[in-house]
Amino acid sequence: MAEHRDWESLEQRLSAGALVTDPDLLMSYRQDWSFDPLAGTPRAVVRAQSTGDVQEVLRFAAEHGIVVIPRGAGTSVVGGSTALDGAITLSLEKMTAIHVDPTTRTATVEPGALTVEVKTAAAAAGLFYPPDPSSFEICSIGGNAATNAGGPCCIKYGVTADYILGMTVVLADGSVVELGSDRTKDTVGLALAKLFVGSEGTLGVITELTLRLIPAPPPPHTLAAYFPQMAQATDAAAAISAAMRPSELEIMDNAAIGVAEEFLHMDLDVTAGALLIARSDAGAAAAAEMELIGRLCQQHGATEVFVTEDAEEGEMFIRPRYAVYEALEAKGVIIGDDVAVPLARLAELTEGMARIAQRSGVTVVSYTHAADELTHPVLGFPFGDDAAAGAAFAARDAIHQLVTELGGTVTTEYGVGRHKTAQLAGALPAALIELNRKIKNSLDPRNILNPGVLIP
Amino acid sequence: MAEHRDWESLEQRLSAGALVTDPDLLMSYRQDWSFDPLAGTPRAVVRAQSTGDVQEVLRFAAEHGIVVIPRGAGTSVVGGSTALDGAITLSLEKMTAIHVDPTTRTATVEPGALTVEVKTAAAAAGLFYPPDPSSFEICSIGGNAATNAGGPCCIKYGVTADYILGMTVVLADGSVVELGSDRTKDTVGLALAKLFVGSEGTLGVITELTLRLIPAPPPPHTLAAYFPQMAQATDAAAAISAAMRPSELEIMDNAAIGVAEEFLHMDLDVTAGALLIARSDAGAAAAAEMELIGRLCQQHGATEVFVTEDAEEGEMFIRPRYAVYEALEAKGVIIGDDVAVPLARLAELTEGMARIAQRSGVTVVSYTHAADELTHPVLGFPFGDDAAAGAAFAARDAIHQLVTELGGTVTTEYGVGRHKTAQLAGALPAALIELNRKIKNSLDPRNILNPGVLIP
Repeated sequence: MAEHRDWESLEQRLSAGALVTDPDLLMSYRQDWSFDPLAGTPRAVVRAQSTGDVQEVLRFAAEHGIVVIPRGAGTSVVGGSTALDGAITLSLEKMTAIHVDPTTRTATVEPGALTVEVKTAAAAAGLFYPPDPSSFEICSIGGNAATNAGGPCCIKYGVTADYILGMTVVLADGSVVELGSDRTKDTVGLALAKLFVGSEGTLGVITELTLRLIPAPPPPHTLAAYFPQMAQATDAAAAISAAMRPSELEIMDNAAIGVAEEFLHMDLDVTAGALLIARSDAGAAAAAEMELIGRLCQQHGATEVFVTEDAEEGEMFIRPRYAVYEALEAKGVIIGDDVAVPLARLAELTEGMARIAQRSGVTVVSYTHAADELTHPVLGFPFGDDAAAGAAFAARDAIHQLVTELGGTVTTEYGVGRHKTAQLAGALPAALIELNRKIKNSLDPRNILNPGVLIP
Repeated sequence: MAEHRDWESLEQRLSAGALVTDPDLLMSYRQDWSFDPLAGTPRAVVRAQSTGDVQEVLRFAAEHGIVVIPRGAGTSVVGGSTALDGAITLSLEKMTAIHVDPTTRTATVEPGALTVEVKTAAAAAGLFYPPDPSSFEICSIGGNAATNAGGPCCIKYGVTADYILGMTVVLADGSVVELGSDRTKDTVGLALAKLFVGSEGTLGVITELTLRLIPAPPPPHTLAAYFPQMAQATDAAAAISAAMRPSELEIMDNAAIGVAEEFLHMDLDVTAGALLIARSDAGAAAAAEMELIGRLCQQHGATEVFVTEDAEEGEMFIRPRYAVYEALEAKGVIIGDDVAVPLARLAELTEGMARIAQRSGVTVVSYTHAADELTHPVLGFPFGDDAAAGAAFAARDAIHQLVTELGGTVTTEYGVGRHKTAQLAGALPAALIELNRKIKNSLDPRNILNPGVLIP
């Protein structure tokens, strides 16, 4: 246990103002975007300003046996940064530096920088940082690394892990190591940088990332196609994915189209079973790619196919997909989720979700990164209605049950966090859990780093 | 120590014929392609036919404290599978099954399958397995995973790690775990599959891999450009890499051009300081990409630029780059090496290598994956000439010294193996070595898996 004077001593070693103990401020760090009603209250929050601050916190925590919850922008929807009573929440939000090197096509970034800021800084140098989680305007690059975030463009460009060359990490004992390097093909022992990506703050705290950037692709062409039935859209998507790699390939279900239309008034076809949206950024080859995609959509029963070469008009085509969140947020509380079933079974999943929605009174819509076979159910319910909230969480559980029956998985690109760890534990063989624990134990023997998250 | 009857008992538990103790056969497993004169002689070789065989070997080794050297096709040039006296060499060469699933665009492969066989099986299904180490016709896919092998196409398509979704691994205690999954975006705890990629047989033995395949790209267009000076070629390559992503971007130095011409008689310009070879597989956009690359080459001083849309003619353009090995092998022994310096310093490296060649009498040529800033020096010397061999190894050491002076690294895509581990140790901070050891120790506490390799 740390005494009052221990905390005073910590405060003196940290950057000015980094240690937060004001009760009102502490309350604002209880929850992340999973809005866990059981969230604890941190004993203290440290808003680190440097790697040194992070080292001080972890040394202090190690010495006094205090749990540390690392936190980026707090946008986890699975409780990845939900506070625990008596723990220190270690926020990286103040560490936001970004440096782009056009010669080596790398960016050196601090973890609190928002993903959109990294993308913008890369673009200013004529370069491209591809990963594009839907939350890219509000999530942090450190959180993206901690969860190996994905997004629509991953079909062609890969996930966050594919863009992380190196990182600075503070370990559970307060020591600092550089993992990976600033080179694409360097070997510096075991691939530890790759191990820390997706480790959700359980192995160490990332205080700097070196990212690989690529030349900016040309503006995309965009296609939208309506299908009477979801199964037709998934068949079309399978045919497209077998033939080529669009830069995006998304499918909205009937409920998502309806919610988007109600919000946008764009004259979307709300009777359609599915809306498929595809993009190509292949420059001089984009028109040919759009033509092929259009042909495959028509062969699989598309009733209408729209194509545009104009980037701005293309933004309108993709707008309904992003509007789903805004539309549901305008009406109440949302639960964003991520599951995966084989593409051939997506129609069964969306039909099942429609039944669950009808039965429960909860709004349930979904969109799917079709080439990656990853579906985001989004659930909506009114503010301040405990019964509706209960129904929504029960509906999510029912969706997870259905996903499992369809041979799918409920832990994909949003991470596992505190909320899905029990589900993960149920799905994993004992030998694999044991292996995870061995690694965790070798790096954090006192289990002070985000305990209860990711590793069952 | 294992007694005679223990070995008999092991033999009975293994597939018929798997255990090899014939002295002549054992001799053929002493060395890999690093031709280490100090290679030991294995006590036994096991040519495993199944995951069960691998488990039996590791259980036996754990029980009796015997070291195990995993071995794929034995093409390591850094001693990754060099035998040790008294150890078991565990060969995966008999495990060669390949199953391609066109629906999920995955391949399930056993580690002994050759990389070329995986590529061919993928192509037969209209799909593409990108990683293309120069040795792809003779190296095994398991060895590629163990070293995270790269190649020319990695500039656009990434390295082996980017194509490994999951794997079956036998751990040091003989237990078997499945890591990763068959999905692009699954989260099953820590990213352990990524940790095992590049671990060079020190953490476990891979007995099956699930690989991600992508749709086959169109046949490439190819460009070749001569430059009077290497620095002009590297400037051109930097400009190309900043603007776009060709599917290959290679630079041969003057010595490599000379050796290739002597072998091929293609009328190459042996007076050129550098030959740059670029490819684009961007389909309808390939012609525009070639034009841009050609223009950038001319802006940076190219004296001649050749372009072809014909895939077969393109093979002739790229032929000199591959002929370097054949040419030197026809004359004697070769040492293939891999180093990296910043592209802006490549000219200094190739000038330095020319001086080292002149001084030592050793043939030294090089080619570079320009976008990845990775250079392969290839050294040649006559068969059976101990003095020349000594001079060649000394020349390699001198090259490594020069690379370090130029701010580069000597451990890149060929792995670290037994030969470069000391160099790696010298380059890494103590905290990073300690972290590697902690992970290694948590999985292989008795240090029986490829000791002395990769982890200092």
